[in-house]
Amino acid sequence: MSQYRAPLADMQFVMQELAGLAEVTALPGLEDATSDTVSAILEEADKFATEILDPLNRVGDREGARLAGDGCVVTPTGFKDAYRRFCELGWNGLAKNPTFGGQGMPHLVAAAADEIWNASNMAFELCPMLTGGAIEAIELNGSEALKRAYLPKMVSGEWTGTMNLTEPQAGSDLAAVRTKAVPQGDGSYKLYGNKIFITYGEHDYTENIVHLVLARTPDAPPGTKGISLFVVPKFLVDENGALGVRNDVRCVSLEHKLGIHASPTAVLAFGDNGGAVGYVVGEENRGLEYMFVMMNLARFGVGIQGVGIGERAYQSARDYARERVQGRVVGTNDAPMGIIGHPDVRRMLMSMRACTEAARSLSYVTAAALDHAHRHPDAETRRRKLAFAELMIPIVKGWSTEVAQHIAYMGVQVHGGMGFIEETGAAQYARDARITTIYEGTTGIQANDLIGRKIVRDAGAALGAAVADMREVEQQTTDVANPDVAAIGARLRGALDAFVEAGRFVVETYRADPRAVLAGAVSFLELAGIVCGGAQLARAASIAASKLAAGDGDGAFMRAKIATARHFADHYLTRAAGLTETIVSGSAAALADEAF
Amino acid sequence: MSQYRAPLADMQFVMQELAGLAEVTALPGLEDATSDTVSAILEEADKFATEILDPLNRVGDREGARLAGDGCVVTPTGFKDAYRRFCELGWNGLAKNPTFGGQGMPHLVAAAADEIWNASNMAFELCPMLTGGAIEAIELNGSEALKRAYLPKMVSGEWTGTMNLTEPQAGSDLAAVRTKAVPQGDGSYKLYGNKIFITYGEHDYTENIVHLVLARTPDAPPGTKGISLFVVPKFLVDENGALGVRNDVRCVSLEHKLGIHASPTAVLAFGDNGGAVGYVVGEENRGLEYMFVMMNLARFGVGIQGVGIGERAYQSARDYARERVQGRVVGTNDAPMGIIGHPDVRRMLMSMRACTEAARSLSYVTAAALDHAHRHPDAETRRRKLAFAELMIPIVKGWSTEVAQHIAYMGVQVHGGMGFIEETGAAQYARDARITTIYEGTTGIQANDLIGRKIVRDAGAALGAAVADMREVEQQTTDVANPDVAAIGARLRGALDAFVEAGRFVVETYRADPRAVLAGAVSFLELAGIVCGGAQLARAASIAASKLAAGDGDGAFMRAKIATARHFADHYLTRAAGLTETIVSGSAAALADEAF
Repeated sequence: MSQYRAPLADMQFVMQELAGLAEVTALPGLEDATSDTVSAILEEADKFATEILDPLNRVGDREGARLAGDGCVVTPTGFKDAYRRFCELGWNGLAKNPTFGGQGMPHLVAAAADEIWNASNMAFELCPMLTGGAIEAIELNGSEALKRAYLPKMVSGEWTGTMNLTEPQAGSDLAAVRTKAVPQGDGSYKLYGNKIFITYGEHDYTENIVHLVLARTPDAPPGTKGISLFVVPKFLVDENGALGVRNDVRCVSLEHKLGIHASPTAVLAFGDNGGAVGYVVGEENRGLEYMFVMMNLARFGVGIQGVGIGERAYQSARDYARERVQGRVVGTNDAPMGIIGHPDVRRMLMSMRACTEAARSLSYVTAAALDHAHRHPDAETRRRKLAFAELMIPIVKGWSTEVAQHIAYMGVQVHGGMGFIEETGAAQYARDARITTIYEGTTGIQANDLIGRKIVRDAGAALGAAVADMREVEQQTTDVANPDVAAIGARLRGALDAFVEAGRFVVETYRADPRAVLAGAVSFLELAGIVCGGAQLARAASIAASKLAAGDGDGAFMRAKIATARHFADHYLTRAAGLTETIVSGSAAALADEAF
Repeated sequence: MSQYRAPLADMQFVMQELAGLAEVTALPGLEDATSDTVSAILEEADKFATEILDPLNRVGDREGARLAGDGCVVTPTGFKDAYRRFCELGWNGLAKNPTFGGQGMPHLVAAAADEIWNASNMAFELCPMLTGGAIEAIELNGSEALKRAYLPKMVSGEWTGTMNLTEPQAGSDLAAVRTKAVPQGDGSYKLYGNKIFITYGEHDYTENIVHLVLARTPDAPPGTKGISLFVVPKFLVDENGALGVRNDVRCVSLEHKLGIHASPTAVLAFGDNGGAVGYVVGEENRGLEYMFVMMNLARFGVGIQGVGIGERAYQSARDYARERVQGRVVGTNDAPMGIIGHPDVRRMLMSMRACTEAARSLSYVTAAALDHAHRHPDAETRRRKLAFAELMIPIVKGWSTEVAQHIAYMGVQVHGGMGFIEETGAAQYARDARITTIYEGTTGIQANDLIGRKIVRDAGAALGAAVADMREVEQQTTDVANPDVAAIGARLRGALDAFVEAGRFVVETYRADPRAVLAGAVSFLELAGIVCGGAQLARAASIAASKLAAGDGDGAFMRAKIATARHFADHYLTRAAGLTETIVSGSAAALADEAF
């Protein structure tokens, strides 16, 4: 099996050249994130991933998490120890608030580290990822007492966090949540109800687990406006953060899933024995609003999972294609060669790499925008960066995870018959990746969010700004005398024209006929991913060509950057015009009353 | 879980209106296949699939086949009994030669029945499918003695057959086969070597298994011209077909696979205890040639697996989408509705149906062409139909199986979080389908076959004939005054233009620069599948519109046919132009020496 190595040179190129690491680390509060510090962080992350997480990935898949008799969950061999070391090394608090013990690194750096954890062991990474979401929920809207009691141990990783949204009748539609929260008159509540699909809802890594739970108070209004958010710890916690008695929340069962076997997906029962003690986060009935704020980061995190799995599947397929000898150069009697010599295998590998790099570029650029949105001294810049990041997040989430399927699919295909045999590991990447287009909102939900909240609501303003930036990229491709870059620029121009047409259709049609737009929403999201990702690769190619012309940097590296962007342009940007045709005219048949 | 029902009305429509069942059953030797007989056959197949095979499909996935201590393989609960009943009902011999006990039904009818077996239980169907391949190998090239001894019991299903091609170092590249076959001077041989990936290489369904094995005689020339084909039975057989002693072939292990768990994939060791007795099929050193003739039918069979899994995944998703209540009509406060009401869910379901129907239509039309190629009294018609079928077979195999991935993917997506939970079954269809783009030649191999053997070799003649047929279809769409059909025709015209351009590029470029063409081979196969499948749906829409105008047949059924074709046109034919751009200009980056 191939061994993962973090693609540090590629990651650094994206961080520095595309995401503007220097500008990010110049932001107030991020001065500690010097270029040297960031390099050291990524090298250490690579080391931890290579030595600990990547070798555990197959173990986790084979053994899976299992439910012991008493509602306890046993994680696979080695995971508990890996988690302890992960926390000891400070990884859990990398981008967390220093007030609560975090290291305060930029989102951009956290995105790169998260890519490394996800590439090497996505089932493991889910635990810190969910803890991060719970931390954010408490930090943004919790009382000072809640923050004091919970955040230090969650930031250190001594306790983990969960997000309890889904119930059997309430999946994408959270308006249907039924879990009850009854005020006890002392500021606390008692919760009653069942939650499903709770990632790391029970495990053996830590002594406590902090559940964030959506529930309704008895007098709450119906629907989405009557949902509140509660902290429900597995063990009660006193005001100093010391553990008290076991709370009334139990793991009833674990799901038998297609992938991420090491990550326990729990059914949790709250209040079967008198009521689970909980504490409201912020105000009653505003739970969904808090969730939505937090969800941006969670969705971004899932997008990074797509990038990580994509990179890992690529490395695995590339290594196999180098080693596996089969067939010869077409039309010759040469000696058999590594299958990496076959044109179709090269095409698949190049597609895998190009899609991964496009998704990575888009994600990191979005992470940098979040850093600016949170910290830039100028309010207008903050507003502009936030609008860009919010526009991009459904694309990062939706498109990175969809291309991760495409990449993992090709990873199996490159392995041929061995790809279908579990021992190879290629199939695991495909199985693990499969959840990423579903959780934290399916691709359909992302596409609806992109269209309804991010484009129609501001009448296409943020979209127009993003397009203007991409037109500048297109212009830059004409500044370098490199035929590949020129070809990329021409493809980008055509794709942008198509994207603009599709965007205009969305804005002009949505209010009068939302269903006609929404039937093409996923195609629009795909188009947006291809165009925005392709524009980032075009930027990369322009920069690489300039460096090449100036004799700056590793020539082979720069030529590979140009080749990768060229491949993406010829194989993916070419899809833009057809997608726009589908978006503009493809809804009638699916929406016909008699269709089903 | 949804219950499978064979889509008999859809299947009959394709058989009668597109594949010309009446013309097929008028062919010499097929007179018994009356319309009533064919209907009765499909109804009985539906019954067997619904009652027996479909319910076993999950059992097979959960239990899997397992290797017992003594090299015996135990199949999942119920499979052995199902196989016995399958044979008792005569299904194994449906399209086999009456000389050996078969019922001599047309390929077209067998294709429809095979779709039903694959939809309900692909892991089960692999056994009769492989037996069919072995029967064909013996029937086409075996001696009279071999035919007499083996075929009657293989046609009845009392014995099963296997195909032993792959060795660890010889996958797609059969030139690397090393298994030895040493002549014994009495007309028999002794074989020594190991074969891997042998589907149903060992099992408990029957008392004997007939292995067809590729091996080299001691003085064979190197490479592909030195490979011979042997019959190696598990138990030796006397001239009357009675069983003798156990042969020296053993199952060493079973693979742990992503899907088709009920189908044992064996590693077989030949000759570890003195030599496995074998009998040459035809002449020495012509084994690969025999395999290639036979492979057409095997590849067609895998294409039908794609159709079957596609239909099954569609039914499962459609049923779930009807039952699952979640969310409401966008912009309203209506009561929650079945998710089938959401535009994006409808888009997915319609795409699943459209792709399945396109692949079915293309497959059945190809099956009918094979019937004409084998039986038509006119030699020129036979030649023309054979050329068409041979052109289509890599498309049927390659494209039907690739769209099966796409369909099964959407099937999981429609199920949302439940799709990732194994109990739902949606994930199983995706896992099972995954092998179909790999075995019997990967999609890349199919694409190379399409280009090298089926298009370049006759300088595009067969392709030109197929395009001319599709231009006629395009013309037919203008004959009916139906706006949807007109829109379909316009899309078909654009797609055909792109296809013609891509075909011209292939023919003109291949000899000078085969690698530039082969880097786009899979894109060309995708384009061919979309255009040829889309043309069949356009035919269906034209016919349905004519019937609708004439008040002939079920109006809702005909309107659904038109809507399905329209959806395919707007969502898939729209991809043709972009694919042609990729094919014509997309090879340079992947082929660059420094790319990897």
